[in-house]
Amino acid sequence: MTSSMAQVDPTAAPPEEDQWLVRAVRLALQNVADGGGPFGAVVVRGGVVVGTGQNRVTRDNDPTAHAEVTAIRDACARLGDFSLVGARLYSSCEPCPLCLTAALWARLDRVVYAANRDDAARAGFDDRAFYDLLRRDRAAWPMPVVERRIAGAEAPIEAWLAFAERVEY
Amino acid sequence: MTSSMAQVDPTAAPPEEDQWLVRAVRLALQNVADGGGPFGAVVVRGGVVVGTGQNRVTRDNDPTAHAEVTAIRDACARLGDFSLVGARLYSSCEPCPLCLTAALWARLDRVVYAANRDDAARAGFDDRAFYDLLRRDRAAWPMPVVERRIAGAEAPIEAWLAFAERVEY
Repeated sequence: MTSSMAQVDPTAAPPEEDQWLVRAVRLALQNVADGGGPFGAVVVRGGVVVGTGQNRVTRDNDPTAHAEVTAIRDACARLGDFSLVGARLYSSCEPCPLCLTAALWARLDRVVYAANRDDAARAGFDDRAFYDLLRRDRAAWPMPVVERRIAGAEAPIEAWLAFAERVEY
Repeated sequence: MTSSMAQVDPTAAPPEEDQWLVRAVRLALQNVADGGGPFGAVVVRGGVVVGTGQNRVTRDNDPTAHAEVTAIRDACARLGDFSLVGARLYSSCEPCPLCLTAALWARLDRVVYAANRDDAARAGFDDRAFYDLLRRDRAAWPMPVVERRIAGAEAPIEAWLAFAERVEY
């Protein structure tokens, strides 16, 4: 990873990446025609598509089945690995915080997107609203998020640390 | 939703909620014994468990298969709905940004957790690191996140807005 790639600067995306964004946008368009949300994504490694995804929230009754999450799951299933180190994610629209954190957990090298959270907001989606919410103190959230440290709260963590054969991720 | 419930205050969690946290912690402990990550979660609606989840990242090769996501998917599949309005999520540990945003998209009423991001960090997990990263400018991220507005970037959004039978979520 070069330092020049670590800039949020559209000009830093080499033109050869556009083909993957075009693929993601086509998947998004196809999904709208099929009755799903207007989002598509592909995972690419070594110049080859290793996973594709379309938004399946309403079709699969799964609020986590965003295009990026679906593409990451698909790539991991195909590669038989929970890590996508060395791979890149191309999305038709800016990943929401769920998808962006999924990209971090998947250890992806890079994320590139075409439309952004403002386009999604214009279409009625909450991506931008959730980004804004994550910047605010939870005390101000409409959905309460409460810590309640019951007895034994740390037991799973302790069991994990004591388990010699644990598989870290 | 009363205003008193919108406070991040452990004392705001009524003791009857503890039983669900105990269930989540038991699921987490069982998962460690089974070779998975130390996290468990349950979704409760109307005093009944409607979904359960354990961390399946390494077992299913799915970096998004966190306990909370798995519980949300399970509840939605059982209820045949992509919305969990009226339901609550109880987790053995503080949801990471992926899981917290999944709870928002699932329209859950409330999230309660036992251990927190510091406990997870002590066990080597990146939950806290990713929360910190989301507060920083993306230009400083080790994983570049790049906007590249290709021609046709808005086409899926426009197609969605023009599609009369779209199912909103």
